Amino acid sequence: MSIFSFTDYGAADIYAGQVKAQFALNAPGIPVIDLLHDAPAFNVKAGAHLLAALAAQIPAGSVTLAVVDPGVGGARDAVAVKIDGRWFVGPDNGLLSVLAARAISTDVWRITWRPDDLASSFHGRDLFAPVAAALARGDPPAAKAVAVERLQVDLGAAGIGEIIYIDHFGNAWTGLRAQALARDTRVVAGGATLIYARVFSVALAGTVFWYENSLGLVEIAGNGCSAAAKLGLAVSQPVACSGNVTV
Amino acid sequence: MSIFSFTDYGAADIYAGQVKAQFALNAPGIPVIDLLHDAPAFNVKAGAHLLAALAAQIPAGSVTLAVVDPGVGGARDAVAVKIDGRWFVGPDNGLLSVLAARAISTDVWRITWRPDDLASSFHGRDLFAPVAAALARGDPPAAKAVAVERLQVDLGAAGIGEIIYIDHFGNAWTGLRAQALARDTRVVAGGATLIYARVFSVALAGTVFWYENSLGLVEIAGNGCSAAAKLGLAVSQPVACSGNVTV
Amino acid sequence: MSIFSFTDYGAADIYAGQVKAQFALNAPGIPVIDLLHDAPAFNVKAGAHLLAALAAQIPAGSVTLAVVDPGVGGARDAVAVKIDGRWFVGPDNGLLSVLAARAISTDVWRITWRPDDLASSFHGRDLFAPVAAALARGDPPAAKAVAVERLQVDLGAAGIGEIIYIDHFGNAWTGLRAQALARDTRVVAGGATLIYARVFSVALAGTVFWYENSLGLVEIAGNGCSAAAKLGLAVSQPVACSGNVTV
Repeated sequence: MSIFSFTDYGAADIYAGQVKAQFALNAPGIPVIDLLHDAPAFNVKAGAHLLAALAAQIPAGSVTLAVVDPGVGGARDAVAVKIDGRWFVGPDNGLLSVLAARAISTDVWRITWRPDDLASSFHGRDLFAPVAAALARGDPPAAKAVAVERLQVDLGAAGIGEIIYIDHFGNAWTGLRAQALARDTRVVAGGATLIYARVFSVALAGTVFWYENSLGLVEIAGNGCSAAAKLGLAVSQPVACSGNVTV
Repeated sequence: MSIFSFTDYGAADIYAGQVKAQFALNAPGIPVIDLLHDAPAFNVKAGAHLLAALAAQIPAGSVTLAVVDPGVGGARDAVAVKIDGRWFVGPDNGLLSVLAARAISTDVWRITWRPDDLASSFHGRDLFAPVAAALARGDPPAAKAVAVERLQVDLGAAGIGEIIYIDHFGNAWTGLRAQALARDTRVVAGGATLIYARVFSVALAGTVFWYENSLGLVEIAGNGCSAAAKLGLAVSQPVACSGNVTV
Repeated sequence: MSIFSFTDYGAADIYAGQVKAQFALNAPGIPVIDLLHDAPAFNVKAGAHLLAALAAQIPAGSVTLAVVDPGVGGARDAVAVKIDGRWFVGPDNGLLSVLAARAISTDVWRITWRPDDLASSFHGRDLFAPVAAALARGDPPAAKAVAVERLQVDLGAAGIGEIIYIDHFGNAWTGLRAQALARDTRVVAGGATLIYARVFSVALAGTVFWYENSLGLVEIAGNGCSAAAKLGLAVSQPVACSGNVTV
């Protein structure tokens, strides 16, 4: 049993540490793994597709705190969702919906419990972390939530032709799943038309190409250079393909 | 029992890992929680106010390594201070003093122990971490320190009208405690006069406002924009209030 | 027993979390310590000298994942090397060779095991992490590797007159070991000739100097200023010394 976290709180910022302090208090002895704290800020759609891809790394039996939550303090629901044997806890704003839509089994619980002190700007610390900790300890979800039919916001199961993440090397991840693309497909992004390369080392030095990355997504990368800098790429920019593609 | 750390070593830098290696060696099996490694660099005053606010997250019975230490290798003392049931270990340069001044009970110990190898530039690794580890293991403070009357440097208990932290969203934290401000107070920073909003979502999109953040401080924030970029804010800049305020 | 990691994956990026998820799965209950995830990107030489210095923090009996691997997916070997009683797992591209060349005892094993799913761009997650986890659990190296005579790529034991790391304060680490330099040596970098100072506080405010840092390397630092910004320093730039120096 481990607790994972996936947020846009920033790896260098003051928020992830506060969430971990909550886990230490409410789920002592259970390991906590920071999966990603630099999901694109405020960007629920990009986060939803990133989490859906990254979930391949999250083992059965674990609990994941998943928070990209620009509407915190507003009307959106808080949910705990059991997706293919793993709990995910976060806002019902679409963030969990791509992963859920691709799953075999999904059980949605709306969180009804509220802590005595609930900061309107930090439900990750005050609401989601204690619920995730309770589930990690083995508490039944009914202790803090009620079962509901489905998520309120559903972004669907399909991939998207957008950039969803840029890493510090300047590689740009898209929301397109690579299994859907023939290897002779051209990918168009930032005004450039890119061909496929199997690995970095077969591309010409200094050139930008697309390949299937380690989570199965179409990624735009440069061999020894920053693809993002070279093509002026940013999260949410559109990415198109030359052929007919089932994403 | 957990060990917390609060430093300006940088979350991405080479120093926090060395401190954690020391904890693994000297306090094996005790969980270590990175609270914040990007406190404003070299800035003892900002760090002292940030730590005083953040300490609400630190549970009784724990030990915190707290290091913002531009005078490392110089004449300042090293201390371990028990503040309301929690140990804090770090330099006696004011960093612990705001928290201590607001506490109910404070016991100050001056660290007299020195390791065989003490790098003059890295007391966090060589001096503070082993002392924090010893306290976390349950060693009595007298094993490495002597009780003294008080801290040498004391910044007092009052809040300050300055920016003490800026997060990666561009939200600027001030050293003013929000409980001291009426909600019709105007906050002046970066040349702008700002009104209160309870939560992000009630402010107009793209506007900057002030609110009570999740640690009870006055924070200058933007709804869907970076307040820091919009107003040119930086740590240590002055922040004023329109009315009479007891900070 | 702990697992350490030293990579250029980026502390804020999506990769370190995936590696930690692998450790949680394959070596449950064994502590994992992020030593550094921001080794200079793609830079094997800088990484090799940084790791050789940083290894002083890595205790006997531990396992370290060490990955700076621009040739991932290409022809370079994967190795597990026992160096003075500690395992290091990573690419055979020179990264481990400076540390090995300075060691008393070195046992080199070429990794022959391959996982069912091996992403050509992420051997850290799919190959090195499971091997490191197996060694941490106490599996014999022969379960996944064969003993070989030596590393394929060897950068030697000597220090180098280059900048190998710049921290967020703007301090620039060189690959020169300070024990080799007399204190009246001048260090030349970025067009400036720098004198020695024992600690930051004895240098004039706003000036740049060199000193022996906490890992025994010659470091170029500024008292209250960024040496890197002031002199335009960058990783891989040459650093020279005024006298005859045995590095």
